[in-house]
Amino acid sequence: MDALFNKKVKNIIKSTLDIDGIDLNESFSAQEKKFDIHSDYLTSANIANHKELYSKYVKRFNLVSAKLDTADRNDANPDSSQFRSLKLDETHNMNAAYLHELYFANIGDNNSRINMDTLSYMRLSRDFGTFDAWQQDFMACAQSSQCGWAVTYLNTYTQSYMNCVIDLHSNNVPVGMYPVVVMDMWQHSYYKDYLGDSKTYLIAMMKQLRWPVIEKRIEKADKLINLLRS
Amino acid sequence: MDALFNKKVKNIIKSTLDIDGIDLNESFSAQEKKFDIHSDYLTSANIANHKELYSKYVKRFNLVSAKLDTADRNDANPDSSQFRSLKLDETHNMNAAYLHELYFANIGDNNSRINMDTLSYMRLSRDFGTFDAWQQDFMACAQSSQCGWAVTYLNTYTQSYMNCVIDLHSNNVPVGMYPVVVMDMWQHSYYKDYLGDSKTYLIAMMKQLRWPVIEKRIEKADKLINLLRS
Amino acid sequence: MDALFNKKVKNIIKSTLDIDGIDLNESFSAQEKKFDIHSDYLTSANIANHKELYSKYVKRFNLVSAKLDTADRNDANPDSSQFRSLKLDETHNMNAAYLHELYFANIGDNNSRINMDTLSYMRLSRDFGTFDAWQQDFMACAQSSQCGWAVTYLNTYTQSYMNCVIDLHSNNVPVGMYPVVVMDMWQHSYYKDYLGDSKTYLIAMMKQLRWPVIEKRIEKADKLINLLRS
Amino acid sequence: MDALFNKKVKNIIKSTLDIDGIDLNESFSAQEKKFDIHSDYLTSANIANHKELYSKYVKRFNLVSAKLDTADRNDANPDSSQFRSLKLDETHNMNAAYLHELYFANIGDNNSRINMDTLSYMRLSRDFGTFDAWQQDFMACAQSSQCGWAVTYLNTYTQSYMNCVIDLHSNNVPVGMYPVVVMDMWQHSYYKDYLGDSKTYLIAMMKQLRWPVIEKRIEKADKLINLLRS
Repeated sequence: MDALFNKKVKNIIKSTLDIDGIDLNESFSAQEKKFDIHSDYLTSANIANHKELYSKYVKRFNLVSAKLDTADRNDANPDSSQFRSLKLDETHNMNAAYLHELYFANIGDNNSRINMDTLSYMRLSRDFGTFDAWQQDFMACAQSSQCGWAVTYLNTYTQSYMNCVIDLHSNNVPVGMYPVVVMDMWQHSYYKDYLGDSKTYLIAMMKQLRWPVIEKRIEKADKLINLLRS
Repeated sequence: MDALFNKKVKNIIKSTLDIDGIDLNESFSAQEKKFDIHSDYLTSANIANHKELYSKYVKRFNLVSAKLDTADRNDANPDSSQFRSLKLDETHNMNAAYLHELYFANIGDNNSRINMDTLSYMRLSRDFGTFDAWQQDFMACAQSSQCGWAVTYLNTYTQSYMNCVIDLHSNNVPVGMYPVVVMDMWQHSYYKDYLGDSKTYLIAMMKQLRWPVIEKRIEKADKLINLLRS
Repeated sequence: MDALFNKKVKNIIKSTLDIDGIDLNESFSAQEKKFDIHSDYLTSANIANHKELYSKYVKRFNLVSAKLDTADRNDANPDSSQFRSLKLDETHNMNAAYLHELYFANIGDNNSRINMDTLSYMRLSRDFGTFDAWQQDFMACAQSSQCGWAVTYLNTYTQSYMNCVIDLHSNNVPVGMYPVVVMDMWQHSYYKDYLGDSKTYLIAMMKQLRWPVIEKRIEKADKLINLLRS
Repeated sequence: MDALFNKKVKNIIKSTLDIDGIDLNESFSAQEKKFDIHSDYLTSANIANHKELYSKYVKRFNLVSAKLDTADRNDANPDSSQFRSLKLDETHNMNAAYLHELYFANIGDNNSRINMDTLSYMRLSRDFGTFDAWQQDFMACAQSSQCGWAVTYLNTYTQSYMNCVIDLHSNNVPVGMYPVVVMDMWQHSYYKDYLGDSKTYLIAMMKQLRWPVIEKRIEKADKLINLLRS
């Protein structure tokens, strides 16, 4: 995420160079990342398709973002306004891009293991009672989604780690969440390889969670919560 | 928010004291806050009703939270599971409680003013182009909501301040948001005093934003973003 | 509803007359109806505001309908397409217009009474067990809505009368429903007169249901179900 | 749909026989239908999985329906009530069961053709301008869904045939719709066979629409509209 440029910087570059605004616009709101995913439990066709999907979301987020620059804010209303529609599309595509990046980065570790002396183990154990209770709760969230996501996140309201069930990309999303473990439960994640057997897919993904990546997120989350309490 | 207790602490207290678990459970997931709101633009009947509503959300969040402690996670599914229903209710009531606290705290300053040398002014100006552009965009978001909220938040994905349109309490919510300015656009906020004239209500509330409160949130948000970049 | 013109007729008129297309377009998708509502339980300010709201929905449905005539169908996609946004707005405003018409027409009878020899009484008693059970179920649906509607409808799937809980105007809506009793539970219906006391509003409206209007709807619904069974 | 029993009949049978109520309850709210689908464009693994999915929805609709018989209506509220959750699940599963039945019945005709002298051809041509315009609009709706459905339906409000975009099973659903052409656009319909290429799946399904089935639905819809106008 550190490669993101401020939108205003983008506009300065755009006006200086006087080149095709829309394309430049699109290339800077979010920048597509590359992921090298090898999992014993996902076919390469599935992975390739999933990356294409993610790439599409990044492009569409940038496209919507560019359209919003000039959308009419005076006519904004709840029923029939381009501004409202674009704002909803913005959140939809932005969440999709963000969640896919977090998901790709935290799966596919064929030698996955969690150590008891990690912050991840300690924090999840603390806030869910035991580490197994976290896992059980997380998997129940994943199994509850109607095409969507399960996410473990630091909640800036309760100041604890919680799990949530997201439908599609932006329904049932907690306000004030900092995501640390992300599982894609859209049917596009598993239907090619597992058809309707989402449970087998989920167990496979849980076995391959990339804990060192999650550890770094939880380290940041922990500093973040100290900062909010100070 | 610093008054919140960790859920595990709650359970330790509960098991030590061996008193009525459910009630204690309920009283600790979130604790109702007191707000002293005086606005030239809202009647006391409206304010009193709004506080009752908030109080109800806190109670219901705690109730749902307590029920979740024992909900069956094995039967979790997308179509007919108590666990799923409770998780959705959890996010609904938790968001409602959180957003109302942020809203109550950031309105009603009858001597409101924003100084150009504040971090609030500088950050909103930077990320929206000008301070006026932020205001225009925020008000357009507020006018776009179908019973819901407008929120200015720090986005942990784009690492910039953005505005969003929330419908009800948990639809169209960005993942990775840290809220800094919050406006209630449910019809319950303004119908008693303004009937359908949401625009007059909105302008009145904008005139009375409590900038010192927002300034503290943005100071934290700014430290937060530095932490995430490090 | 019998005053509605077929959209094609509209286009023929438009092309023949060669007058301002958009306005003509708008005036024919739905035509605003007049309602004369006098209720001991609703203030005239509330009623006047509610009629304005309805009028706005009809206008916006017609506006969206006109925009859809020329929207680009080739670029239709789930993430960022004007066509998709307009189709969602179409259903939102169309449902709002339709439901408000049904609601206005079935409330405000200051001498309301239901006779046991009416089809309404018999059908609701049959499908809910007793007439009281229908009423209890309907009121529970009304109290369950998060800003929305309670509707008794003939379900073309189960071929029986059922109640549903609609959030906003188009969420949780049964497929294949023919509405017969409609209650507005958006906060705009009762906040001016009752603040958050939706229950008192609801009881008042139930006392004033216009049963002769409902009877005609149920007579049609009953013929309709015979037709579907034939 | 003619095999459905009235719920009260069910209860009479139940009380007479004094057998295990829940099971009987479940077996009568909706009864699973058998479909014999052979399509050159769908693998048998895909079809078998899809039928299982449908079967699950019927079972869950019946389960939810049975639970609703005894759910507490006094505590119904918008935030944390079992009754509300069950009503939402009821609509979700009922719509899923109904739409799948209509979908299975109207696809898979390997010798599909539409004749210009059919009511289907004439009505769709009339209300969309041309038959091709209907097809283009319907396909645009299908491509617009975020996991959901495209449906051509008779709208009892506008009294014309329209297309709609449904997300999941119950969002953006028009009130007063009688469905006549139904296309499943959940990712479960095509990911096994087509991965993310929903367009190829859609074109294949359109080529195999079972027009004689649709014709019967439109014949009923036409009688229905005459009845409503009378």
